[in-house]
Amino acid sequence: MTAPSPLGSCMASEMAEQPRALRELLDRQAGIRAMLREVVAEPPRGVLMLARGTSDNAAIFGRYLLEIALGVPVGLVAPSIWTRYARYPDLSGQLLIALSQSGRTPEIERVVQLAGSAGATAIAVTNDERSPLAEAAHGVIALGAGLERAVPATKTFTTQLAAIAIVADALSRQDAEDLEDLAAIPALQERVLEDDGCVREAAAGLVNARAVVTVGSGLLYPVALEAGLKLLETTSIPVLSYSASDFVHGPLAVAGPEVPLVCFAATGPVHGDVVAAAGAASDRGSHVVWVSDFPGLPDARYEHLPTPSGVREPLTGLLHAVRAQQLSLEMSRALGRDPDAPYGLQKVTPTA
Amino acid sequence: MTAPSPLGSCMASEMAEQPRALRELLDRQAGIRAMLREVVAEPPRGVLMLARGTSDNAAIFGRYLLEIALGVPVGLVAPSIWTRYARYPDLSGQLLIALSQSGRTPEIERVVQLAGSAGATAIAVTNDERSPLAEAAHGVIALGAGLERAVPATKTFTTQLAAIAIVADALSRQDAEDLEDLAAIPALQERVLEDDGCVREAAAGLVNARAVVTVGSGLLYPVALEAGLKLLETTSIPVLSYSASDFVHGPLAVAGPEVPLVCFAATGPVHGDVVAAAGAASDRGSHVVWVSDFPGLPDARYEHLPTPSGVREPLTGLLHAVRAQQLSLEMSRALGRDPDAPYGLQKVTPTA
Repeated sequence: MTAPSPLGSCMASEMAEQPRALRELLDRQAGIRAMLREVVAEPPRGVLMLARGTSDNAAIFGRYLLEIALGVPVGLVAPSIWTRYARYPDLSGQLLIALSQSGRTPEIERVVQLAGSAGATAIAVTNDERSPLAEAAHGVIALGAGLERAVPATKTFTTQLAAIAIVADALSRQDAEDLEDLAAIPALQERVLEDDGCVREAAAGLVNARAVVTVGSGLLYPVALEAGLKLLETTSIPVLSYSASDFVHGPLAVAGPEVPLVCFAATGPVHGDVVAAAGAASDRGSHVVWVSDFPGLPDARYEHLPTPSGVREPLTGLLHAVRAQQLSLEMSRALGRDPDAPYGLQKVTPTA
Repeated sequence: MTAPSPLGSCMASEMAEQPRALRELLDRQAGIRAMLREVVAEPPRGVLMLARGTSDNAAIFGRYLLEIALGVPVGLVAPSIWTRYARYPDLSGQLLIALSQSGRTPEIERVVQLAGSAGATAIAVTNDERSPLAEAAHGVIALGAGLERAVPATKTFTTQLAAIAIVADALSRQDAEDLEDLAAIPALQERVLEDDGCVREAAAGLVNARAVVTVGSGLLYPVALEAGLKLLETTSIPVLSYSASDFVHGPLAVAGPEVPLVCFAATGPVHGDVVAAAGAASDRGSHVVWVSDFPGLPDARYEHLPTPSGVREPLTGLLHAVRAQQLSLEMSRALGRDPDAPYGLQKVTPTA
């Protein structure tokens, strides 16, 4: 008989693969850029992101970063309009970017086919370059993150963010400054992965919450959404996720001693909005966990999960997301749950 | 001395004004259509919706209905890209529809000004046709819902949905079938407003929930979002809101006996998706409150909040939203809170 694996061993090992997956993607960037030059010959009139679940949070990162980089409207596809209402908007001149870990979500594949007929140029971003999604698209970015065995996707998400950063850089036809910064990320991810003591402490303070709120803004708003999905999936604790500006309108009413906040902030133009949201919740009694590259805390009562400083804001999500994964893993373990197979499902345990 | 007003008397009276506000808007529809013909002379290449808070949920209704009706991509503006990142995407050929109850949200006004410079034609939808927002736009739809005194917006939301339905009908250049249906809505809203006994019962069953999930799909997804915001604002209970398809991916993990669902369903192409989401949550032990125009229940254990049948799906939100308001009002009262002034704030009580 072998000893039982610790809870979340799949998730933990997939998290640890992230620096490797990112390095391999960066090694293939010349080919990705060549594909984009060929497939996206004309500057698009607009960009549409298409995804579900964790990939949808990466899509929202693209919605922000590509609009900032390309200067054209970037939106999110509502799949039901195509698959349920059977209305096919005119997508001539639009670039469609479809993200799917497996490339085998029938709904996503179907919309890519229909959008191609409606005039869009489609790029698939997927781990499986021979999947139906890849075949339906005009071009493919193979993530190469490898098979995901744990239910909560981790390495696919950060690799998707990097792929979107490469697309933004390639299509904005500016200098390759972003990609040089990207090359520094794998080593920084390793540093964050090793430094997990602070996460266990923060996790212990969150597991008895009635609900948790995750907050971000701008380029880190999608990381707050992904943190929310990951925490909810692995712990079954209700998690509400907001942009900082939306939160301080109505949803602030939920803040209080039973409902802590996890905030994702980085040095940059929206930092003050996250500081304000955290302050408003803290005033109502919420405990605040502050994930940030900035060495100091806006309020000494906040609990700090530091990320490496000196990274340009668009790439900080590749480090903040690791903090969110660690928090999910540690909260799940503290609750005695197996994050590899949530929903009360058990994986088949092989016996030797 | 006068007797104290019952909790939520402002909210209740503003809810009761909805049929009147809608009738008045419909009386002015010829003028609105003439303005749209003049300001939107060419079919737009795309539409962008701009709003915050409750108005943002109406914007998401527009995101669905206008894409279905006009056959062009419809998206949502991320204000922070304009106001924080100072990037101004090229909006030539785009129609921008900005929604704001007061017309006095500086962020919204600012983006309308910038978007106009970036090539967009802007329509303001607001209660105050002399507000800064109205002045910054090329055309104005005056909602005429009247001053909102209660913090949770009610009459403005349903009037916004109706305004969007008028825009969809006017710009799709099809028959006025939608508007004929719209004329029947005020009387049906009155019927829903009078039938509130079932709501008090449902509210009593929800007030002790750890958290509540609201679910909708397609054209009722924005009503599920608005229900979530309204419930959270008035009760401070954590409320999570999802489209049916997103919910059954990861967030289903939150379902269970402590976390009931409130589902918004209508006869139409996405009905089955909401039935499936409710069934999956019910299997995990969630109690289900089912807001629907369909006389029968998908499961006899569900609690029914009926809405009038025979209404075309795009307009059902004008009735389902009233159910959400009633539920917020009654849950708030059952908790001894005043929904007119949530966040622990008190309104000044006038003495005679």
